[in-house]
Amino acid sequence: MYAVEVRDHIMIAHSLPSPVFGPAQKLHGATFIVDVTFFRAALPPDNIVVDIGRALEALHKALAPLNYANLDEDPALAGQLTTTEFLSRLIFDRMAQARRDGWLGPYAEGISRMRVTLTESHVAKGWYEADVA
Amino acid sequence: MYAVEVRDHIMIAHSLPSPVFGPAQKLHGATFIVDVTFFRAALPPDNIVVDIGRALEALHKALAPLNYANLDEDPALAGQLTTTEFLSRLIFDRMAQARRDGWLGPYAEGISRMRVTLTESHVAKGWYEADVA
Amino acid sequence: MYAVEVRDHIMIAHSLPSPVFGPAQKLHGATFIVDVTFFRAALPPDNIVVDIGRALEALHKALAPLNYANLDEDPALAGQLTTTEFLSRLIFDRMAQARRDGWLGPYAEGISRMRVTLTESHVAKGWYEADVA
Amino acid sequence: MYAVEVRDHIMIAHSLPSPVFGPAQKLHGATFIVDVTFFRAALPPDNIVVDIGRALEALHKALAPLNYANLDEDPALAGQLTTTEFLSRLIFDRMAQARRDGWLGPYAEGISRMRVTLTESHVAKGWYEADVA
Amino acid sequence: MYAVEVRDHIMIAHSLPSPVFGPAQKLHGATFIVDVTFFRAALPPDNIVVDIGRALEALHKALAPLNYANLDEDPALAGQLTTTEFLSRLIFDRMAQARRDGWLGPYAEGISRMRVTLTESHVAKGWYEADVA
Amino acid sequence: MYAVEVRDHIMIAHSLPSPVFGPAQKLHGATFIVDVTFFRAALPPDNIVVDIGRALEALHKALAPLNYANLDEDPALAGQLTTTEFLSRLIFDRMAQARRDGWLGPYAEGISRMRVTLTESHVAKGWYEADVA
Repeated sequence: MYAVEVRDHIMIAHSLPSPVFGPAQKLHGATFIVDVTFFRAALPPDNIVVDIGRALEALHKALAPLNYANLDEDPALAGQLTTTEFLSRLIFDRMAQARRDGWLGPYAEGISRMRVTLTESHVAKGWYEADVA
Repeated sequence: MYAVEVRDHIMIAHSLPSPVFGPAQKLHGATFIVDVTFFRAALPPDNIVVDIGRALEALHKALAPLNYANLDEDPALAGQLTTTEFLSRLIFDRMAQARRDGWLGPYAEGISRMRVTLTESHVAKGWYEADVA
Repeated sequence: MYAVEVRDHIMIAHSLPSPVFGPAQKLHGATFIVDVTFFRAALPPDNIVVDIGRALEALHKALAPLNYANLDEDPALAGQLTTTEFLSRLIFDRMAQARRDGWLGPYAEGISRMRVTLTESHVAKGWYEADVA
Repeated sequence: MYAVEVRDHIMIAHSLPSPVFGPAQKLHGATFIVDVTFFRAALPPDNIVVDIGRALEALHKALAPLNYANLDEDPALAGQLTTTEFLSRLIFDRMAQARRDGWLGPYAEGISRMRVTLTESHVAKGWYEADVA
Repeated sequence: MYAVEVRDHIMIAHSLPSPVFGPAQKLHGATFIVDVTFFRAALPPDNIVVDIGRALEALHKALAPLNYANLDEDPALAGQLTTTEFLSRLIFDRMAQARRDGWLGPYAEGISRMRVTLTESHVAKGWYEADVA
Repeated sequence: MYAVEVRDHIMIAHSLPSPVFGPAQKLHGATFIVDVTFFRAALPPDNIVVDIGRALEALHKALAPLNYANLDEDPALAGQLTTTEFLSRLIFDRMAQARRDGWLGPYAEGISRMRVTLTESHVAKGWYEADVA
């Protein structure tokens, strides 16, 4: 299995209104370092899993609506606990859509699996990984 | 698959009395940066793989008997070669026990797999990963 | 010159209401990895710049009022642009006070200089450094 | 599953003569931080996945023909697009051969899987992972 | 003293034709992670050392002529040994010029000192630091 | 001012027998990632602060007597509290001697200042920096 991983980041505000989150129930924020990994079984003629330039661009576009935002006021996220895990999946779904929409270039249909990792501090991170069709 | 990973560290002394270890047969020591990864297939209502605060606390407790210790004098480790791989498994077993004992909170029963990674320097690390029941 | 540096982190929400900040004028947030450096010319009898355990504890206490907070609602910060640079100085002042108040232990009076570094992402950080009296 | 990972690096020149690579079609270069991961299901008597000293040495030998080289002039690579992905596989194959040739020591026959990761910058990396027989 | 530091990278080919460089006399290459640090004694009204967005943009522009290039064929570098140290200074001079040319915004005239750091691998880096007028 | 920094590591056992060290009074251990920085005002003809290959070799030699050792049994360290700060100075003195002894090559006499940094974990490090004559 081949893989390529690219990195960007977002800076968001949110609150996590459930008792399990303790002080994080209050409005606070986070920098999330976002890594997206693309997996494929074999390489196409240009010997790439994905065009790194396009992948970085697609990631930047996918992150734009979240960056410098207060997630508590995003209607699309209403009623959701926007944990690191939830956001990993949200960004995963947007990148999977970006692939289907052709943002990742012609070779991207051979990508069989993806992972989105959000590093929130020097002691904690989360990710979501799944096959893509 | 969702995952969350948390970090702590220990500082131990030990010797590795087998010829394969060369100079590490002598009493020496190591800082191990310890990362514990928790995997689960789906998220519970609070959208978390595990309560990060509890995970950090459980890890700290699991590491306490090893921290600032000379492993050569730990009766529980007598006759064992305390390699990075062996210690990864040892800490894995303690964290699996912590999960069964409820230290990781009510949602933790949905955790299906765990990994414990020990980084021993800027050029070497080891880990153990397995399903948990 | 000897130095010792310890690390902790905070997760905050804030807005930066001045045109220079572009999209960061909106309410957003950040994880700041916080490193505090202590400098001294010579070592006291115990061969330490500062007691690392006490330094980590003092830093954690100094950061507590900022952690998981919306800085826009902190009366003590009213009317301030809470940039990375500003917050570096704010935490520096609290750590300098902590030293004067004895939180850093008996040897800490020999500390002659301090630095507080805030890393906000994988591509940007800021710090404040000055002598302490 | 147990794993051990070791690190080295190479500094190479190459060009990527296909339109998909944009400015990287020109002769340029890269530092690749190279991590090799060894996986095995169970530990042999000495409690190691692989002898770390031998693994570092074998990796250094495997990388030697690539280090400080212009890959465009390596006859063995003629007609190949030497992408990060391609080089990950190339180094993987050399390390798999090194294992079969006994460079990794007597225990290495129990290694069942390997991964070679090439980090090319703070925002991009690639890898190849497969079973070894 | 306040400081802000921003990061970008370049991927270059070059040779170092002097016996002191051993195998690096041959045409090879490097990824240089480039950090630029801006220092100033006091903060202007917006509480920033420099506009981070402008700093990242100015750095990207300053690096563009070097990125994806074979430095051996750059007429401006003819006869120069393009070591990490030399390139740190070269990029420093371009960033100092960028500041004088106004690319860093109106506040940038208060910047009194700069540093440019080039990290070439996980075991080596170099930098140049000086006052700017 | 120009600088170059190189990295290696040691794995040691020791105890810190003074009440200020709490649990670290017991025999334990550490991995120290060791960075040595060389500073000089101007570059010699080959455009280098120091020959990186020689610097790495000299550092490796300077660290050899400490690596895989129990510092409590080193007669040269008898009666010393071998803190991170103390060891930074010890390695500094050995590297300063290595420079005077010519291990760093002919250009090294222009090195005017050095720093030795020991990173002991992901949350703590120490260093010693001074002019060299």
